[in-house]
Amino acid sequence: MDYDSALGAAIDRLHKEGRYRTFIDIERRRGQFPHAVWTKPDGTEQDITVWCGNDYLGMGQHPVVLNAMHEALDATGAGSGGTRNISGTTVYHKRLEAELADLHGKEAALVFTSAYIANDATLSTLPKLFPGLIIYSDELNHASMIEGIRRNGGAKRVFRHNDVAHLRELLEADDPDAPKLIAFESVYSMDGDFGPIAELVEVAEEFGALTYLDEVHAVGMYGPRGGGVSEQLGIADRIDIINGTLGKAFGVMGGYIAASARMCDAVRSYAPGFIFTTSIPPVVAAGAAASVRHLKGDQALRDLHQERARVLKMRLKGLGLPIVDHGSHIVPVIVGDPVHTKIISDMLLADHGIYVQPINYPTVPRGTERLRFTPSPVHDPKMMDGLIQAMDALWSHCALNRAELAG
Amino acid sequence: MDYDSALGAAIDRLHKEGRYRTFIDIERRRGQFPHAVWTKPDGTEQDITVWCGNDYLGMGQHPVVLNAMHEALDATGAGSGGTRNISGTTVYHKRLEAELADLHGKEAALVFTSAYIANDATLSTLPKLFPGLIIYSDELNHASMIEGIRRNGGAKRVFRHNDVAHLRELLEADDPDAPKLIAFESVYSMDGDFGPIAELVEVAEEFGALTYLDEVHAVGMYGPRGGGVSEQLGIADRIDIINGTLGKAFGVMGGYIAASARMCDAVRSYAPGFIFTTSIPPVVAAGAAASVRHLKGDQALRDLHQERARVLKMRLKGLGLPIVDHGSHIVPVIVGDPVHTKIISDMLLADHGIYVQPINYPTVPRGTERLRFTPSPVHDPKMMDGLIQAMDALWSHCALNRAELAG
Repeated sequence: MDYDSALGAAIDRLHKEGRYRTFIDIERRRGQFPHAVWTKPDGTEQDITVWCGNDYLGMGQHPVVLNAMHEALDATGAGSGGTRNISGTTVYHKRLEAELADLHGKEAALVFTSAYIANDATLSTLPKLFPGLIIYSDELNHASMIEGIRRNGGAKRVFRHNDVAHLRELLEADDPDAPKLIAFESVYSMDGDFGPIAELVEVAEEFGALTYLDEVHAVGMYGPRGGGVSEQLGIADRIDIINGTLGKAFGVMGGYIAASARMCDAVRSYAPGFIFTTSIPPVVAAGAAASVRHLKGDQALRDLHQERARVLKMRLKGLGLPIVDHGSHIVPVIVGDPVHTKIISDMLLADHGIYVQPINYPTVPRGTERLRFTPSPVHDPKMMDGLIQAMDALWSHCALNRAELAG
Repeated sequence: MDYDSALGAAIDRLHKEGRYRTFIDIERRRGQFPHAVWTKPDGTEQDITVWCGNDYLGMGQHPVVLNAMHEALDATGAGSGGTRNISGTTVYHKRLEAELADLHGKEAALVFTSAYIANDATLSTLPKLFPGLIIYSDELNHASMIEGIRRNGGAKRVFRHNDVAHLRELLEADDPDAPKLIAFESVYSMDGDFGPIAELVEVAEEFGALTYLDEVHAVGMYGPRGGGVSEQLGIADRIDIINGTLGKAFGVMGGYIAASARMCDAVRSYAPGFIFTTSIPPVVAAGAAASVRHLKGDQALRDLHQERARVLKMRLKGLGLPIVDHGSHIVPVIVGDPVHTKIISDMLLADHGIYVQPINYPTVPRGTERLRFTPSPVHDPKMMDGLIQAMDALWSHCALNRAELAG
């Protein structure tokens, strides 16, 4: 068995399809987001503006977050020193979980090392708690949900994206007495469209199913206290489990679920991905808690965020570019080909100092390769002018379609 | 379906078996490790000494680590702002991966959010890279390896713990041309015993199998530069993939694999658990890199660590207590019953200010419930006197066996 050749073949497949990922080495400068320094492969540096980050509100440089982290470092040191059960639970973890439970109006919350593992560990553990559980999953759910649902070989049904009628058909075809869970997202990150949360909750209640809502691309940004779309709609109390991240709008790292005390206790007790891993460092927990707390009261930042997204979409539409607009903060421009997407991204970076990573399969379906812009409160009008001019010039230069591909 | 009752039943099962986990809320004080403050359920505080942490060398309070973290916070802010592919690769991540590749004498390294996810993601991705792969797994491998091997339903064989003859039987029974991988650990954390790495490598070479070595409880502590037991034995170059953690001896958080450039590139490109998750914060990467770099040169700290473990084991043996001693830094005292273990742990904490978490099933087999002590360079002789006196008194008080249960 020639293992090295097999590895080479696996890598070659990606090159051939134009979707081999090259990581761009960047370093953001505190206080100057979204400006950053790009270290090129040859070691030279170039100033750039990041237009594709998920630190949606710029909280990663907010003094309230950084001060909390400096203080925690000085008070308690670097890592937690253990799993949550074995010396790794601190007041920082407890305070963060209390903030998150409060954010979503739930009895409890449980912090994981990432929202990826929160989804994976929770969704793969629920069938142990509810034997015979059938999970109904939106076809565009995030990879971490799919991994959790697939693991352990539990029963699953996949419904067409946002198609409540299809979900209903699937529910009607199953044993009415079987335990059931419906898993979906509030904001789908690649198109920026919203899940029909209210309708899904109604169907779930009708069929006696639990609901699992991934709010990763909404927490901090939607709802009067940043509790996500479920808070905005006033139906968080009808969602059984809410999943969120501390690594995007909250600007730090980690993930969580918020749910009833009993649900959190059971997941805490049965999920290997929670039990057998070192807890997040107190310094990370402290920064995240400060961010969550701050954003509960900073509606002005949320408003500015939405305003910036609206303006960018309007201006890109003005150029006739094929953007997808579902009214969220995410601004995808469809190119539709992995090689073109990469070329445009490379030219934006090298010629204009604009960094937006190409998004290819398997992150999005083939034929919908795109540039995904994430305007934020720290992207000022002058930066937006630069982006608009560069996009206009590039689209003409490359003779790309305008508008035709828009969703 | 009454979901709440099902959750209650799942939790009750743990209570009945005496293995419901109660997290102890502690806060270590920087510069005073292993001292910490325990916040009791009633809100009052008590000074304690932590004897069960995995910050084995006290690096979580080392100035070189904390300074690197403060500097990174000031320079670049809190979180990374994205996945590795989408704006989340920084010079901090690249420097850390270069340190780790160098540590193990490998071409490359890949950092994950935890060693748990490094194991899970890598082991579940290898069957995609080598179709038909059979994984041979030591029966006492860590939960994260088991999860990774089980996921996706790939072929697996479980060999008896450290039983090279059994492994050989299993290898002989399989198709000689099938791709194979042997997965094992260098230090098994619950008994503190070593894997027969040299013999396992020989068998792997004989049968043309890849080797996967989890060095989570060895990196930083063994080998002349902290490269783990494989470095100590001088056979790291014959291990294909080395897994390690940044959250134990290195004192921070995160995990990694070190391997050939091609192997890392393929795992990087195909593992959902690497691709679809926010990268570790630059501040965490900076602290971890500083720790790895420092420990490459601090043999005195490693020597003191081993010395402290030797002395503790000698003194516990002197009392006739049933300790397991395989010559590593881990000191398990077998109690053999979950309820007794919990009572002793509670009494040590409340009456003596000594914190050692009870270790129960499923972390260890039923009937081998234990207290697991992790002496470190920061546990001085006076603290050890206190521990020895408390253990002696408690063992007499509870009329527990001495020596009989020792492994």
